[in-house]
Amino acid sequence: MDSSDVPARAIAPFQVMEILSRAKAMERDGRDIVHLEIGEPDFPTPPLVVEAAVSFIRRGEVKYTPASGLPELRDALAEYYRERYGVGVGPERIFVTPGASGGFLLVLGMLLGPGSKVALADPGYPCYPNFVRLFGGEPCPVPVDDATGFHLNAESVRRLWGERMAGTIISSPANPTGATMAMPVMKELVDWVHERGGFVVSDEIYHGLEYGERSHTALEFSQRAFVVNSFSKYFGLTGWRLGWVIVPQDGVELAERLAQNLFISAPAASQIAGLASLREDNLQELERRRMALAARRDFLCERLERLGFVVRVKPQGALYVFADCSQLVPDGVAFARALLREAGVAVTPGTDFGCHETQHYVRFCYTAPILRLAEGMDRIERFLRRSPSRVGLV
Amino acid sequence: MDSSDVPARAIAPFQVMEILSRAKAMERDGRDIVHLEIGEPDFPTPPLVVEAAVSFIRRGEVKYTPASGLPELRDALAEYYRERYGVGVGPERIFVTPGASGGFLLVLGMLLGPGSKVALADPGYPCYPNFVRLFGGEPCPVPVDDATGFHLNAESVRRLWGERMAGTIISSPANPTGATMAMPVMKELVDWVHERGGFVVSDEIYHGLEYGERSHTALEFSQRAFVVNSFSKYFGLTGWRLGWVIVPQDGVELAERLAQNLFISAPAASQIAGLASLREDNLQELERRRMALAARRDFLCERLERLGFVVRVKPQGALYVFADCSQLVPDGVAFARALLREAGVAVTPGTDFGCHETQHYVRFCYTAPILRLAEGMDRIERFLRRSPSRVGLV
Repeated sequence: MDSSDVPARAIAPFQVMEILSRAKAMERDGRDIVHLEIGEPDFPTPPLVVEAAVSFIRRGEVKYTPASGLPELRDALAEYYRERYGVGVGPERIFVTPGASGGFLLVLGMLLGPGSKVALADPGYPCYPNFVRLFGGEPCPVPVDDATGFHLNAESVRRLWGERMAGTIISSPANPTGATMAMPVMKELVDWVHERGGFVVSDEIYHGLEYGERSHTALEFSQRAFVVNSFSKYFGLTGWRLGWVIVPQDGVELAERLAQNLFISAPAASQIAGLASLREDNLQELERRRMALAARRDFLCERLERLGFVVRVKPQGALYVFADCSQLVPDGVAFARALLREAGVAVTPGTDFGCHETQHYVRFCYTAPILRLAEGMDRIERFLRRSPSRVGLV
Repeated sequence: MDSSDVPARAIAPFQVMEILSRAKAMERDGRDIVHLEIGEPDFPTPPLVVEAAVSFIRRGEVKYTPASGLPELRDALAEYYRERYGVGVGPERIFVTPGASGGFLLVLGMLLGPGSKVALADPGYPCYPNFVRLFGGEPCPVPVDDATGFHLNAESVRRLWGERMAGTIISSPANPTGATMAMPVMKELVDWVHERGGFVVSDEIYHGLEYGERSHTALEFSQRAFVVNSFSKYFGLTGWRLGWVIVPQDGVELAERLAQNLFISAPAASQIAGLASLREDNLQELERRRMALAARRDFLCERLERLGFVVRVKPQGALYVFADCSQLVPDGVAFARALLREAGVAVTPGTDFGCHETQHYVRFCYTAPILRLAEGMDRIERFLRRSPSRVGLV
């Protein structure tokens, strides 16, 4: 274990893992912890999805599926794109994957080679640069902030573009900010990158979890975009580990070959669960959950701002509030540690999401009922009152 | 889709996929096909495993687990190594993965960088070289045949060893030959590679499916070996997509970081299924299945030899007979195609497993009941009688 050129060694540990393991140790000692650190919806698997999976498993035939996924699930997803986005996608372009993680392995495996440079928003989802590194590529962070709605755009990518730039990964609604990218901004960016022969991977994992305007898929602007999505967030099937990707027509054959090698297939019962998730009666249940999340978001933003946090761009989607805490404390990491230790509230330090001013931020997930969010906010309020000098935090 | 340096593009399609899709088309046309091409046990999920998964799913809490797997499953696997192999493995060294495929991504992600060379038996499992390529490494095939029991050994690896050799992947029982590696051969090879600072990844996915002497884990010879295993074959849980890896103590921290990025976690219900699979009453059921497989193997080897195939090393494990067909026909690929078309029997061409004399071979899986294997053999017998000149095959 001392070889040098192994890209995986450049992967930094997530700070939140340390927070999480401390939180669990405190719980073992009998402390009550308000968990606002993990982006996992708290709703149970919808009953009709449970029943579909259970009857499938009871038949005993939980076998490999085709590497690209069950044909009926690919067909249902094609229909979903037609209905939701008005976009025609042939089912042969849809590949069912073990989570969006498997989706990123598949599309980045198709696109990257040694030295490929990829433009990424900073702050952004921290696995993007790690996936890029793993395939020998080089992540190129583009600082983003409230000036551009915490998103890339054609201008910021243009300034970076040069030798060996292979493409970009975009995401709207985004983690950690919940910010959505305006439709014309996305169109201009996608067009600009495609004109330069680059790829666009659009991470649409938070689609459906938007609280204003509905999200647009990158496929509305270009059928050359690669889309990654998942049943984890909007559909709430985290532990089932099921996602999908959509590749351009001329990528189908390579995606097929690569999926056969990377996964063999996605979990069979999860694919049956995914298929049931797309049923109209389930989508109605998801709509009720979405409205509950919208109420939580409003509650959390308002309480955080009253406490002295600054929410620079009100999140329009996803499950997160990325809150600037620099008016309260100088350092988000120390603040997150102190919040856990002193107030029993677990949050994620902004530095997990990049380098650009992230030390001033912490991320709150509204993946708990409002009463629990209120308990968390009350605890933070008492904690801030106890430490008015804000010096004892570090 | 025209970038050049993308290693995934070097991945060749599997011939068997063409066979499989032709077979399915023939079935849609009403033809009965004897499937001997896919290495998937035909037994259903054992009922007690079904029930464990069903009650877990019914609770609705199918959530992310820790990236390394459920602690109780890691503990149970540690206990399994103590009981089965007499080897002490701390549960912190065991990582639960989405199938053995996920296991290979994890360990090779930990070990490989651009240009890393890896010694591999040819013929061997065809995903090994593809995983190596994907991480920018270079597969180094070592021709093996009946002279060395179709396995690598210290001598053959020594002849190849040189600049940038990073390590080797071994597998016993092996795919496609079912050949097992003798204990002293494995020990000598593992020691030799470790002395040169190389890594050894031991693919033990067919452990438990052996019909003579029990297999030895590489961990019996060195705690520096990396082990990949799965619930798919011996435990029969293919479609659940669950595997595990064991890493050396000093690799634990890196494996943890990488698993968080690569997978987030393995499917939760599958982990519960895996845990139930390790129960003593289930192991007794698996023992009955193993004896049924042993009887199939004997039947298949005998019939194939009577038909004129040569089985150079009688398989001691796994699910396969790798049969030399060169006394019957000049070309295994053409033979496999003709067998499907003319006799309705699907087998895998040897060329899917490498280059070394593989054109003379086809692989038969005994993943069907004996009556069905007999039907397949009868069809092949009639086919060979109809085509005595063996000319019309190509």
